[in-house]
Amino acid sequence: MNKAIRIGLAGFGTVGSGTYAVLERNQHDLQRRAGCPLTVTRIACRTPARTEGKVSSDCLVSSDWRDIIDDANIDVVIEVMGGIEPARTFILAAIDAGKHVITANKALLAHHGNEIFAAARQKGVMVMFEAAVAGGVPIIKTLREGLAANRIEHVAGIINGTSNYILSTMREKGLAFEEVLADAQRLGYAEADPTFDIDGQDAAHKLCILASLAFGIPINFDACHIEGIRGLDPRDIAFAEELGYRIKLLGVTKRRDNGFELRVHPSLVPKRRLIANVEGVMNSVVVKGDAVDSVLLYGRGAGAEPTASAVIADLVDVVRMMDAATEHQVPFLGFRLPEDECGTWLAMGETVTSYYLRVRLADRAGVLADVTRIFAENDISIEALIQREAEPGSSMTDAVMLTHSAMEASVVEAIAAIEALDTVNGRVVMLRKEELN
Amino acid sequence: MNKAIRIGLAGFGTVGSGTYAVLERNQHDLQRRAGCPLTVTRIACRTPARTEGKVSSDCLVSSDWRDIIDDANIDVVIEVMGGIEPARTFILAAIDAGKHVITANKALLAHHGNEIFAAARQKGVMVMFEAAVAGGVPIIKTLREGLAANRIEHVAGIINGTSNYILSTMREKGLAFEEVLADAQRLGYAEADPTFDIDGQDAAHKLCILASLAFGIPINFDACHIEGIRGLDPRDIAFAEELGYRIKLLGVTKRRDNGFELRVHPSLVPKRRLIANVEGVMNSVVVKGDAVDSVLLYGRGAGAEPTASAVIADLVDVVRMMDAATEHQVPFLGFRLPEDECGTWLAMGETVTSYYLRVRLADRAGVLADVTRIFAENDISIEALIQREAEPGSSMTDAVMLTHSAMEASVVEAIAAIEALDTVNGRVVMLRKEELN
Repeated sequence: MNKAIRIGLAGFGTVGSGTYAVLERNQHDLQRRAGCPLTVTRIACRTPARTEGKVSSDCLVSSDWRDIIDDANIDVVIEVMGGIEPARTFILAAIDAGKHVITANKALLAHHGNEIFAAARQKGVMVMFEAAVAGGVPIIKTLREGLAANRIEHVAGIINGTSNYILSTMREKGLAFEEVLADAQRLGYAEADPTFDIDGQDAAHKLCILASLAFGIPINFDACHIEGIRGLDPRDIAFAEELGYRIKLLGVTKRRDNGFELRVHPSLVPKRRLIANVEGVMNSVVVKGDAVDSVLLYGRGAGAEPTASAVIADLVDVVRMMDAATEHQVPFLGFRLPEDECGTWLAMGETVTSYYLRVRLADRAGVLADVTRIFAENDISIEALIQREAEPGSSMTDAVMLTHSAMEASVVEAIAAIEALDTVNGRVVMLRKEELN
Repeated sequence: MNKAIRIGLAGFGTVGSGTYAVLERNQHDLQRRAGCPLTVTRIACRTPARTEGKVSSDCLVSSDWRDIIDDANIDVVIEVMGGIEPARTFILAAIDAGKHVITANKALLAHHGNEIFAAARQKGVMVMFEAAVAGGVPIIKTLREGLAANRIEHVAGIINGTSNYILSTMREKGLAFEEVLADAQRLGYAEADPTFDIDGQDAAHKLCILASLAFGIPINFDACHIEGIRGLDPRDIAFAEELGYRIKLLGVTKRRDNGFELRVHPSLVPKRRLIANVEGVMNSVVVKGDAVDSVLLYGRGAGAEPTASAVIADLVDVVRMMDAATEHQVPFLGFRLPEDECGTWLAMGETVTSYYLRVRLADRAGVLADVTRIFAENDISIEALIQREAEPGSSMTDAVMLTHSAMEASVVEAIAAIEALDTVNGRVVMLRKEELN
């Protein structure tokens, strides 16, 4: 039996305590996998009292993460504090001290991943982050290793459980966004401040990481176009359903001839696709590669033990490789030097996809012809159209259109022209549609 | 740039030629991943003329696999010949010559995997086999590494595309098995001799491998209970649909207190589960772990390039690790010494699951009471029941029952007692039902 690996755990919230619990419970099998015992010897967390009764008396607990850095016996640190600081300083200090790092921190990697990877490469230590995207779903390993043979064409994912729960519930119960959000907060599915989840930032953090893994280029959060689900109208969910689509908050990154698309926004997805049937807080990611075609992964994207599952899988990988020469390690992003090829990130106007448009217009002859003429002038062709009779007592009606593939800039231009018609009322609702085939 | 890795490719059928093509097409990215060029320097196949125009003139082609073994410059062999012999002899010879092995051969691993792994461990070479199960879907890596934190509770998969295509088509078109099989053969979705696919052996080969990875015990094909889809009655597909279930050919392996279940047979799966909606030739595997809960993977289970995707992912892993000490390698089955814990495989009578039963009985008072009394006597409780009126001109009718969890031996006993009733006609149809929650 080899000597135990000593682990410093920074953070003892949901994920930290879950990780400790799973390491304890499954220690026998983990030792059979890793070849040695895995022991958390130090914990740093804001409120050390929270560890009482939950951790071994041999485990040192303090409120100062520097105690982990200063402990020369610690080989690996697990960062599950969350947030940018002090997580960034802690991780850079751990790397500097020659410790391997496992983190679940998507926000940190989205903003400072390149800096962290560069520091780790220089020092020859590993940085692993399976838990940063889609919780227990091993999508990082799948992109980094499992699909290594492929030129990745696109990655599209439901990678924020809160917003998927809200969208599922809005559709199933026909309720408005605000009502479902309030329920979700009461039930603990949404945080008191749900901004990061419902406005798309959390999904964007994760998507940037997936894009870099897919294409072998540095992480670039600023290149990501982000729209959330706030203000989504239940009428559009119902119209989408009628047309055979579900609306999901998708992170999409796509290889195009002239660069890469990187965007988070509500998307229509054909109902017959498995990913359209991912409901509630579940996560799912579809990867399309040139050899493998489409592969889908599905599972829990959050929660104490699903996230712990990802953290500990990384730990077993790290333990196997910690005494090996760095050339044998799997590169952080799957490619040896992702900085060699920076790629070009496309602006949102250069996006090519298809669109769902809802126009509120006067219910009389010739009005729709004006709208369709504007599409034709902008080289946009219509795939499907629903027009209702005006509601009783109103002279206005909804016209809903699905377009074929078009350049977003053209669609935006057409929308401006349509909104300028005096037979059209208010703003045109525009959603994107992904066929994912 | 490090020196090129030299690869010997044994077999140039669908998978062999697909592997060669993907290695060529994606060589730039593969080199960025592996750190060196990956070059097929020798091919051995039955008909060398088939490689003409498809491979580089620098690549030596012969009809004798011994030429690969004898070439001391070859570091890694890829075995995509299929079948037991000469694949087994070739792989053992390659191991003996100190070459690493990548294989797509599920039948070989199911029957001789333990022998091959023992030889490779002794020699310190790697044996990789992602392509052996579910084609391009990285389920081997997921079980072996991605879910390493978990005590696996069950694995259930649609791992034979031909039989899933037949079942999907029977349901969608309401056709009989023989009719769909003949169509599938015409379309190339089923082989001229479809026995291995439709009788469950192919799925069983794959399931045995998954079970060993899940539980860390040696492969044991003989422990697997195997039933195929031949003789499945479209009426049962329709009844299942009415009850909210789809019938799929599942491979199921389950941890129980007293051992492991290992079985391939048609199963009812709730329609609301994603895996119930996997149609056509697609493959999908659900893994339930104690920490991660359920994770599902989905993708193409066969075909030239999806399988090549898996072979080449293994190749990149092997190339990274080939000069590292063996202690750093991921163990073949995820556990260092799976032989240490042999586990107990349960007999089919010890299986605990729920059941679908269809009984053909006389349509008159008291008959159903006899049947339900027999269930009660065998400690089997009924969850749902459908009974139709007798068809016009017949005095017999179908009664369909779903049971709660029961021990298979009790169900078999109850069925024998029911078949002995003189109000019951013919055999009772018995199918198993998996909730997969």
